[in-house]
Amino acid sequence: MNITKENLLETHARIKPFIHRTPVLSSQLINEIAGAEIFFKCENFQKMGAFKMRGATNAILQLSEVEKEFGVATHSSGNFAQAIALAAKTQGIKAYIVMPSNAPEIKKTAVKGYGGEIIECIPTLEARETSLNEVVNKTGAIFLHPYNDYQVIEGQASAAMELIEEYADLDAIFAPVGGGGLLSGTALAAFHFSPNTKVIGAEPMGADDAWQSIQKGEIVPQTNPKTIADGLLTSLGDKTFPIIQQHVEEIIRVEEKEIVAAMRIIWERMKIIAEASSAVALAAVLKNKKKYQGQKIGIILSGGNVELSKLPF
Amino acid sequence: MNITKENLLETHARIKPFIHRTPVLSSQLINEIAGAEIFFKCENFQKMGAFKMRGATNAILQLSEVEKEFGVATHSSGNFAQAIALAAKTQGIKAYIVMPSNAPEIKKTAVKGYGGEIIECIPTLEARETSLNEVVNKTGAIFLHPYNDYQVIEGQASAAMELIEEYADLDAIFAPVGGGGLLSGTALAAFHFSPNTKVIGAEPMGADDAWQSIQKGEIVPQTNPKTIADGLLTSLGDKTFPIIQQHVEEIIRVEEKEIVAAMRIIWERMKIIAEASSAVALAAVLKNKKKYQGQKIGIILSGGNVELSKLPF
Repeated sequence: MNITKENLLETHARIKPFIHRTPVLSSQLINEIAGAEIFFKCENFQKMGAFKMRGATNAILQLSEVEKEFGVATHSSGNFAQAIALAAKTQGIKAYIVMPSNAPEIKKTAVKGYGGEIIECIPTLEARETSLNEVVNKTGAIFLHPYNDYQVIEGQASAAMELIEEYADLDAIFAPVGGGGLLSGTALAAFHFSPNTKVIGAEPMGADDAWQSIQKGEIVPQTNPKTIADGLLTSLGDKTFPIIQQHVEEIIRVEEKEIVAAMRIIWERMKIIAEASSAVALAAVLKNKKKYQGQKIGIILSGGNVELSKLPF
Repeated sequence: MNITKENLLETHARIKPFIHRTPVLSSQLINEIAGAEIFFKCENFQKMGAFKMRGATNAILQLSEVEKEFGVATHSSGNFAQAIALAAKTQGIKAYIVMPSNAPEIKKTAVKGYGGEIIECIPTLEARETSLNEVVNKTGAIFLHPYNDYQVIEGQASAAMELIEEYADLDAIFAPVGGGGLLSGTALAAFHFSPNTKVIGAEPMGADDAWQSIQKGEIVPQTNPKTIADGLLTSLGDKTFPIIQQHVEEIIRVEEKEIVAAMRIIWERMKIIAEASSAVALAAVLKNKKKYQGQKIGIILSGGNVELSKLPF
């Protein structure tokens, strides 16, 4: 499938009434540290606290009336679970979320708070898929994939579209990469609306399947990821990988201590809460500051859902 | 001295070019919790991270040219130290900051980062005053008091003035009270620009000298304060107390656990970093939510300077 400029414009118009247009913030202090002008697209202020609300909303809005009656289902222990729960609630439809039994209580509470129905499973990939299939078979709910889905990718693209609309002359946009929904969407947004803006993926060294996949020219599944950036543990999908391969300039990998340092800079200097997965993008800019000296850089600050009792500081 | 409407307008015009006009933010989730509409005046996004920048700037801008050559001096281990250092630097003048030797390294680094010269003393009230006198005698620097100073009070008033300018029909404004600079300034702003808006002080139970002073009708000095709200440890002064006595509706005291809970709500729901002293104001609203049901409430979110390695979560 080829995602066109028109697809993206239609998507943005479709989801606009149901999402926040998040602010773009800058910090003089961080610009001094980076030696560049950085524009943070603050998806940490998005509804439910992350960009995932965009893709989830887009997918749900395109269900048929009949499909809406059966509801939606997904498996996630992270932001996509909350996004589906809230986006479904907003449209008055049912959401079934399969979560591992060891998922943090705070995440379960958040999903329930948005009206989602949680189906617990034992924490293995197999159990997760079995549980999801059971739910889908029993309820007729439509399965929505957290990132390997064109409607989700189109939705995620809207964050970069808004950023580009406000800052037309960015030299580069950095976005973190996990399953690749945000990064592929960002790359498509730049390709269609700001072709001179390079898009760069930022990835933890301890979960560098995207970097490996690009090197090898085929999807290398993520195995045994180890990183504080808990939104970036997943593997690329067969829909996100080709877009990234074609439109992303490079993947920059960062160490755990660079992620924590970047997170601390955002918290201390900007006084805003960004999750570790978001800090990965700033870490990648700072790691390559010579290369980006004096440039105008966009960063998609992907989310702000952190467990305050488990901070790395 | 009588601080007039004109004084406040002149002050605001004077300091405007050197401070941020901070945003006013709301959170639907917090409004639901409070059962009221709350408007947070985000001084955590102010330069150097707190409202203190306003008063410090106002005081420094009114020095004579001769005084400016000698510089300014103060004693503080907190936000006022950073505010004086930065405000002085902005005007190209020297700042001497007396700090106790046990002040956190992060605070010393911040003051030095803003170009302030630190004079360390042993951590007693007596040593602090002796050191300050020595500095003033040796350098000729002008001493600026952190709060018991009309120019400082006028400067702090500008936060509430901006809030009132944007939201004319607030039922009440809550501000934390330590030495009373912010609270007295807020009360004067409401008195002159929104006389139907009540101003309420919020204070930790473990540092309730303002509440005691109001009960007794005279200044009760703060002794042995115990609270996480480290900006609220000081006593009222003979300039701040009468203004508070005359123009503040009441002082509401809150428990430590209520402060931490309010702080957590701000961090988790708004994704912004507010210091414990700021959270005291939201805690006071939540503690009295029945009384303020359905009302429009302003909160001066006083600052965002926290030590990330010492969080209460």
